[in-house]
Formats: sequence, C-alpha cells, structure tokens
Amino acid sequence: MIHYNSADIANMDRFYRGNLINSVTGFKSANLLATQSKSGIDNVAIFSSVTHLGSDPAMFTFVQRPLGHGVGHTYENLIATGQITLNHIHLGLTNKAHQSSAKYDEDVSEFEQLQMEKEFKKGITAPFVRSAQIQIAASYENEYYIKENRCIIVVCRITDVFLADGLQLEDGFVNLEKAGTMAINGLDAYATTSINDRLSYAKVDEPLKSISF
Amino acid sequence: MIHYNSADIANMDRFYRGNLINSVTGFKSANLLATQSKSGIDNVAIFSSVTHLGSDPAMFTFVQRPLGHGVGHTYENLIATGQITLNHIHLGLTNKAHQSSAKYDEDVSEFEQLQMEKEFKKGITAPFVRSAQIQIAASYENEYYIKENRCIIVVCRITDVFLADGLQLEDGFVNLEKAGTMAINGLDAYATTSINDRLSYAKVDEPLKSISF
Repeated sequence: MIHYNSADIANMDRFYRGNLINSVTGFKSANLLATQSKSGIDNVAIFSSVTHLGSDPAMFTFVQRPLGHGVGHTYENLIATGQITLNHIHLGLTNKAHQSSAKYDEDVSEFEQLQMEKEFKKGITAPFVRSAQIQIAASYENEYYIKENRCIIVVCRITDVFLADGLQLEDGFVNLEKAGTMAINGLDAYATTSINDRLSYAKVDEPLKSISF
Repeated sequence: MIHYNSADIANMDRFYRGNLINSVTGFKSANLLATQSKSGIDNVAIFSSVTHLGSDPAMFTFVQRPLGHGVGHTYENLIATGQITLNHIHLGLTNKAHQSSAKYDEDVSEFEQLQMEKEFKKGITAPFVRSAQIQIAASYENEYYIKENRCIIVVCRITDVFLADGLQLEDGFVNLEKAGTMAINGLDAYATTSINDRLSYAKVDEPLKSISF
C-alpha cells in the first residue's frame, strides 16, 4: 500500500497533487451548467462539484473556484440573472463538455464554439443542452464563502425537472444508467456506469431486499 | 419528455420526491466515513455527499443532515475527537455499507453489527475499513450551517492517503475503476463503472488528446 502523509501532500508538484486529491474522494457528478449573461451571451461549462443538498426544498450546491483570471462566468451570470440550468453529460457529449473548461472569453458562447446544440423552454431564459436526457432549471438561492480556500459554495433551488421518457420508475427513482449519465474520476477521466443493485430502506434487525431499478 | 415544475415538486409524496431529487443531480460518491467516539465505540456510516473542495490545502466536504432522532454520530465523534476516515465502497461492501445507514444506537459499533473488518494505523485513532482499496484520514477543519434546510456542510482536511498498489499513475491520477469504487444513483442504487476516456487539459484553440488512465 502507498501512504502519503500531510507533508508529502503539501510538498507535491501541484499537478500531481491535483490529480491525486481530485481522485481520492470518489466519483463525481458530470454536469454542464448553462447560463445567459445580461447581454444575451449563452454560457455553458462543465462542473464536477454539483452535490445534492436536500429534497424539500429541492436544492443542489456547486463549488465556485476563487474568482478572477477569466473564470466564473457561470457564477456571474447566475448572480446577474438568477437562473441556471443543469444538464447531464452522456458519452456523446464528453469531448465537448471537457473542452468547455477552456478559458473562453466572456463574450464568446461555448455553445457556438463547441457546436453544442442548445434549446430554450417556456418561461426560462437560461439555455439547456438539447441532447441531455436529464435537464434541470434552478434559481440562485444563497452562497457560503469558504474561508479555508476562498471558494464559494453556491446553493441553487430546483424549479423544474425535465426527464426523457422511460427513465423514471413509479416510486420516483430515475435510472441514470439508462440516461447515459457519466461519472467523473479525478479532473479528466469519464466513466460509464452499470447499476448493480438497488436496496431497500435499511432498518436495524431487518434484512435488505433488492428493489427494481 | 416529463416536466415537473416547482409546484409539482412541492406537492409530491416525500418518498417519491426524495427518490427523484436525489437522482437528478447525477452520480454521487460512495464512501464509508468512520470515527471513534470518546468512549471508544467505532462508528462507520455510508455517505453519498462527500465532495472534493480543493487540493491545496487538500480538503473535502460532506453534508450532515439536521441533527437529532438518532442521526449524527459521525459528526459528533468528529467534533469530539477531530478525526475521521474515508473509505471507498467496492462491490463486495455494498450491502454492508447500505445497511450502515440504519439507525443503530450510539453505543453500538456498526463494524461489529455488520461484521465489517476494521483496521487501525499508527498515529490515527479513527478506524479504517480494511477491505477498502482507497482510504483517507482527515481532521475536522470547519463547518458551515446552511440556513435553507438546517444542514451542515462539514469541511475536513486530508492528512493521510492510503492507496492499494497498482492504482496510481505517474502523474498522480488514481484509477477508481481499478479500485472497484462504486457510484451511487439516488438514495439506494449502486453502480460499477468503466472509464471510457481521459482527456488532456483543455485550452482554447487546441485539440484535446486522450491520455493514459
């Protein structure tokens, strides 16, 4: 077994450390967050930090890295307009989604640069990624400044959920394997998934059962 | 396509809404967080909310649901001792990991109840899950109270990383498929993964390359 202690981690080359530390917390969600600027530029960017925060109210968070140096268009547009969409990345979108992390100027639409098809839905000004099988619209709710590393945890409230047909079960569950949703390993590896099992609600002294997915 | 708006989501049965909203933000990490209480009881519990926060300093977050009603032993032990371990869930651990979400009394060790083998490492009092191929030790760093739903985002600083042999590349990347690390869909479905591609750092006007994983 390999062991790295605090001093080892602190002294690593920063790219090496980035690859290691981004991998060791497990798989990450793979989403494209899309926004529209006040001047009408449609922005789309990949985020691997989207996390479920709660279901009632329905909310998710994402991590905004320290602002400046050409980053933060997603965050700035969200603050300016109050709206954002979340779009699941599938295998066919992987390369374009990854390329969206390049530092395009704020007056450039990544949709056009990457030839990624967008769509608009009634009552929502932020664009969606057309080919995504699962799309969410959300509004800005709040933010928490993380003083340990100057990141911002942004809280978004889910206002609309759009699901392709055939993904959802009667109990509400949505099958992400069927949606082709990818998972991210580290900074840059993209994985397909295969659901092995779904398990009943766990109770003390009651055996688990497999349930349908 | 199915569309749920804010009113639909607010009016759903809570189990249905939980299944839906926990699914639609994408795949989640699958980790067992382990702690030791002040009185020496070894606790282990599944968390799907662990998220990479930053690499320098190396930190992750997890979401602690509102305390009370027998939940929160992980959080309480972390506050009391300052130490926690993170252990990746592989296929063979899935059932025991899921069962760890049952509300065991605080004087019960889930390691013993679930017959999950633990191990201890020099200088770290919190237990590890022996069969996990990737194990992390971390210390309590800070917390942020989320007023929107009374959750707590807990910030942990990574002090040690332990990797089974054969998982890490020369550039620091750790292959989670080789580690057998699972991903979680919704509240209760467990997926294996297959890395499809790993892509070079994205730059404007430079084509992406596949890199080794």
